[in-house]
Amino acid sequence: MKSDVEIAQAALLQPITAIAEKLGISEDELELYGKYKAKIALAAWDSIKNRPDGKLILVTAINPTPAGEGKTTTSVGLGDALHKLGKKTAIALREPSLGPCFGLKGGAAGGGYAQVVPMEDINLHFTGDFHAITTAHNLLAAVIDNHLQQGNELDLDVRRITWRRVVDLNDRALRNIVCGMGGKPHGVPRETGFDITVASEMMAILCLAQDLDDMKDRLGKIIVAYTRNGEPIRAAQLNVTGALTLLFKDAIKPNLVQTLEGTPAFIHGGPFANIAHGCNSVMATKFALKLADVVVTEAGFGADLGAEKFLDIKCRFAGISPDAVVIVATVRALKMHGGMSKDQLTQVDMQALNAGLSNLTKHIENIHKFGLPVVVAINAFPTDTEAELIFVEEQCRAMGAQVALSEVWAKGGAGGIALAEKVLAAVDKPKAFKFIYETEATIENKINAIAREIYGADGVEFTAPARKSIKELVDLGLDKMPICMAKTQYSLSDDATKLGRPSGFTITVREIKISAGAGFIVALTGNILTMPGLPKHPAAEKMDITNDGKITGLF
Amino acid sequence: MKSDVEIAQAALLQPITAIAEKLGISEDELELYGKYKAKIALAAWDSIKNRPDGKLILVTAINPTPAGEGKTTTSVGLGDALHKLGKKTAIALREPSLGPCFGLKGGAAGGGYAQVVPMEDINLHFTGDFHAITTAHNLLAAVIDNHLQQGNELDLDVRRITWRRVVDLNDRALRNIVCGMGGKPHGVPRETGFDITVASEMMAILCLAQDLDDMKDRLGKIIVAYTRNGEPIRAAQLNVTGALTLLFKDAIKPNLVQTLEGTPAFIHGGPFANIAHGCNSVMATKFALKLADVVVTEAGFGADLGAEKFLDIKCRFAGISPDAVVIVATVRALKMHGGMSKDQLTQVDMQALNAGLSNLTKHIENIHKFGLPVVVAINAFPTDTEAELIFVEEQCRAMGAQVALSEVWAKGGAGGIALAEKVLAAVDKPKAFKFIYETEATIENKINAIAREIYGADGVEFTAPARKSIKELVDLGLDKMPICMAKTQYSLSDDATKLGRPSGFTITVREIKISAGAGFIVALTGNILTMPGLPKHPAAEKMDITNDGKITGLF
Repeated sequence: MKSDVEIAQAALLQPITAIAEKLGISEDELELYGKYKAKIALAAWDSIKNRPDGKLILVTAINPTPAGEGKTTTSVGLGDALHKLGKKTAIALREPSLGPCFGLKGGAAGGGYAQVVPMEDINLHFTGDFHAITTAHNLLAAVIDNHLQQGNELDLDVRRITWRRVVDLNDRALRNIVCGMGGKPHGVPRETGFDITVASEMMAILCLAQDLDDMKDRLGKIIVAYTRNGEPIRAAQLNVTGALTLLFKDAIKPNLVQTLEGTPAFIHGGPFANIAHGCNSVMATKFALKLADVVVTEAGFGADLGAEKFLDIKCRFAGISPDAVVIVATVRALKMHGGMSKDQLTQVDMQALNAGLSNLTKHIENIHKFGLPVVVAINAFPTDTEAELIFVEEQCRAMGAQVALSEVWAKGGAGGIALAEKVLAAVDKPKAFKFIYETEATIENKINAIAREIYGADGVEFTAPARKSIKELVDLGLDKMPICMAKTQYSLSDDATKLGRPSGFTITVREIKISAGAGFIVALTGNILTMPGLPKHPAAEKMDITNDGKITGLF
Repeated sequence: MKSDVEIAQAALLQPITAIAEKLGISEDELELYGKYKAKIALAAWDSIKNRPDGKLILVTAINPTPAGEGKTTTSVGLGDALHKLGKKTAIALREPSLGPCFGLKGGAAGGGYAQVVPMEDINLHFTGDFHAITTAHNLLAAVIDNHLQQGNELDLDVRRITWRRVVDLNDRALRNIVCGMGGKPHGVPRETGFDITVASEMMAILCLAQDLDDMKDRLGKIIVAYTRNGEPIRAAQLNVTGALTLLFKDAIKPNLVQTLEGTPAFIHGGPFANIAHGCNSVMATKFALKLADVVVTEAGFGADLGAEKFLDIKCRFAGISPDAVVIVATVRALKMHGGMSKDQLTQVDMQALNAGLSNLTKHIENIHKFGLPVVVAINAFPTDTEAELIFVEEQCRAMGAQVALSEVWAKGGAGGIALAEKVLAAVDKPKAFKFIYETEATIENKINAIAREIYGADGVEFTAPARKSIKELVDLGLDKMPICMAKTQYSLSDDATKLGRPSGFTITVREIKISAGAGFIVALTGNILTMPGLPKHPAAEKMDITNDGKITGLF
C-alpha cells in the first residue's frame, strides 16, 4: 500500500493558475508561491463582494476515539465528489501545525486518495502564515519585557503578565520557564512560558479578521497584562499594533492549493480547537463562498466542541451559516463509544454498536437544534458489515438525517458521490439557523446553554477562581462576548472517559479567560495543555529528503 | 526628502521573470513568491555549473563608526552602475534580520536611490528562509530536551548542553532562562537561553552548504552537548538530521530580487558577522558567478572582520576568490577615526583626516596581503570638501589603490559610474590570491596570523579557559578548521575605543567554541552578545500599514 506522501508525489498537479481559473480568479489577483501554491490579493475582494454566497457545508464528527474518524479526508473527498458532479466547488480547510507534524502525526492534509497537495509544503512552512503569527506574537512579548526593562511606565504587575510566547513546535520544556535571568542588563526575572503557535490568540484573530483594519483593531485590544492596581493593559498601549499588523500583511491573504483531483482548496489559518474556535479563516471562507457554488469546510474535534464554536462564534462574527452539516462517523468508532476496546473492533457486536450510536444521535439532535439539516458520512472500513451499516443508516434516518457511505480514502472523489448527492439534496432544504445563546446573556447563562443543550449536562458548576474571573469581566464590561469552550474532545461531558452519550453529569468550569482581541471568553473545564510534548520517538525521526528533493516520512 | 520606503514604493518594479531573463534563467527554473521575488530551483545548477565564473567584486569597509559608511548602499549602487555600463551584472547580498529591523534599524536593504526591492518584503518575512532556520534550530532543541525527558539514553550532561534556542527578534529577556520548570511532566529543569536567529550555527551552515546532502552532513555534525564523560554529542545522534534538512528544502534555494534600477540581486542567507562568517550564501554567490559577468557581493562589518572571514572561510570552502575588493569609507568616518567627535564632522580638519586615514590604509595593506587589488569608494556627503577628497585620493593612490567618489545614495547607478569604471579596470589586473593561514596550522598559530597580519597586533594572549578548549579540540581532532574571529567591529584591536590604526596591543582570546557543523572554530575576544535588546523606543513603534496595504516606518 502506498503511503500518503507517495500518493501525493505521484500526482500530476495542475498549475495553481489553472486551479484559480476554475474559480474565475485571474493570474493578476494571485500571488504565487512556487507553481502550486498562491495567495489571493485582498484587492480581489472588491470585485466579488456583492455576489450571492454559494452553499456552505460544514463537516464535523462524533467525539473522536483512537479508532479514527477521517474528518479532513472526508472533507477533501466530498469536495472532489461535488467537483466530479460538475459543481463549482471549493474546499476551505485549516493549515496544519508543524508541532504535531514532527511529533505524533507526521502530517495532516487528508489521506489516501483524498488529499490536498502539495502536501509536503502544506505540512511544512506552507506560505509562512504560522511563522508570521509566531513572529508577531513574540514581538509583542519582547516589547512587554522591554517595557519592564525600560522602567515599567505602565506599572505592569510582573506576576500578572498573561501574554506568553509561542513556537510552532511540540516543546514541553518551554511550558514553564523563568526568563530575564543573568542580572540587570538582561531583563526582569519572571515566570512565563511558551505555547504552541496554533494556541496564540493572534491565530484566532487572524482567523476572525475581516480585513487589515479589523486585524489591527483586534490586535490592539489584546489584554497582555494587568497593572498592580488590576487594570487591564492592552497591546495598543505598547504602541506596536501597526508593526504587528504589518507582520500579517501577507498572512491575512487566503492561500489557494488543490486536491489530488484538482478541486480548488483554500487552506488558511488553524487555531487550536480547544482554547480557540478551531476553524479556518473567515476571509478564506468568505472568498470561497463568493467564488464557488458549493464550499466544504470543517471544524476541529467533535461536533460538541468544533461545530458548536463554528456556529456560535465564527458564523456569528462572519454573518454566515452552513446549509448542511456532515457528521463523520465510523462503525469502528461507534463500537468504541459502545464500550468495545480498540483490539476488538473487527468483531460484529450490534449491542455495542447500538450503545455507541447514542453518541452520533446526540450530535444529530444538536445540529437540529441549530436549525440545520444533517447528513451522516460513514467513513468505510474493510471490516464493516452490511448489517452494521444498515443498522446505523436506519437509526439516523429515523431522526431525519440522511446517511451515506464514504469511500474517499480508497477511491478519491468517486468514493464520495453517494455522500455528495445526499449533501446536495440537503442544502436545498429550508433551514432556520439559530444560535444556542445570545451574546447579551450573562456568562453563566451562555455556558449553561451550551452545557445543557449541546453536552446534555444537568448544569454547570463554577469554581471560586472562575466566579472571581467572571466578576472581573463583568466589572470591565467584557462579558458580552461569545463563549469559547475548552473541554476534552473525547466525551460530550468534561470527563474524557465517559463515552457514548453520558447523562446525569454536570460540567465544572475551573477557569475563565478573556481573549479580548479575538473577541471571545474562554471557559476552561479542565487542564488544557497549550504546549504539547514530543513522544519518545517523534515522527521527525522517520523523515528524510534526498539531494534531489525526494521526501520520505511525511504522511 | 523622501524616505527609503517612499522611494521604494514609488518605483515601478519589473516582473521577476523579466529580471531572471536578464540572467538567462527561464520561468521554469523559478519558484515565484509573488510577482517580484523568486527562488531558483536547485536543478538549474546542472545546466550552468560548467560555465566559466564571472568576475567577483567584494565590497567591504573601514572599521564602522557612528558616522556611517553605507556599505550595502554602495554595493547596490555599484551593481546598478555596472548594469548601466552594459555589463551582465548580479548583486549578491545578505538577508536582513527582523530583530534589528524592529529594534534600532527599521530596515536594511540599501538606502536612497540604491536599494533592493521590494524592500518591505525583504525586510520582513521575505521568502521565509530565516523562519526555516528558527524552526529547524528549535526543533533540534526540543528533541534534545525530549531526550532528557525520555530517559537520557545518551547520558547528556544537563550542564553542558551547548545548543540553545533562537528567535529572529531582539529579546534580551530570553538571553538567560531556566526551562523545564513545573514538575516531572514538563521537562528537566536546566539553564539555557535564546540567541537571535542570525547567530544560529544553522544560519552559517545554510550559507556554506553546497547542496542538500552537504547541508545534511553539516547539520548532523553540529555538536549540541557533551556527555557526563565529556564526549561530544552530535545532532546526528538524535536521529533528526533528515527532518532538519527537510525544513531547509526551500530555504537552501537562492532568492532573486532586483534593485530600483532593475539589476538582478541575489539575497540569500545572513549569518551574524561576529560569531559567524557574515556573508551571503555560497550557493547564491556561485549561481551569480555562473549567470553574470560581474558579481558584486559584500561582507559584514569592517574589512578586518568581514573581509578576512569572507576570504579565509567562505572563499576557502567555496573554492572562489574575488577579483577586486572595494573598501567603502567616508570623509566623515575617517575624521572620527582621527579623533573628531560626531558633532564636529562638518568642519574641515586635515590633521584629523590624516590621522584617521591610517585606518583605511591599514585595510588597503591587508587586502594587498591577500594578493588582491583594491578600489576605495568614498561615499559622498554634502559636507565633504574638494581638498579633503583630493587628500584621501592621493594617499590611497600612493599605496597602489584606486579611488572613486560614490554618489549612489542620491543618484542611483549614475552616481556610481566612476567607481564602476575603476572596478572594471581593477578586475582585469592579475591577482595572486592567498589565504592568511593554512587550516593545517595549530589553532594558536592561525589566530596569531590573523591578529598580527590583519589587526596589526603584537601577539595573542589566550585565557586559561581558551587554552583548555583548544586542548579539548585538539584531543577531539577538531582543530584543523578555519578560524572565525569574534571581535569588536569598531577597532582593528579588541578594544572598541581604539580607533584609527592602533599599535602596541595584544589580542586576548577569552573563549574558543566549535561550530563543527559549519566547519569553523570561533575565537571570542570579548563578550559577544548573541541576543540584542530593544531600545526604549523600538523602531517598531513607528511602523504602520493601512487597510489597502500602504506601509510606513520602514527605512
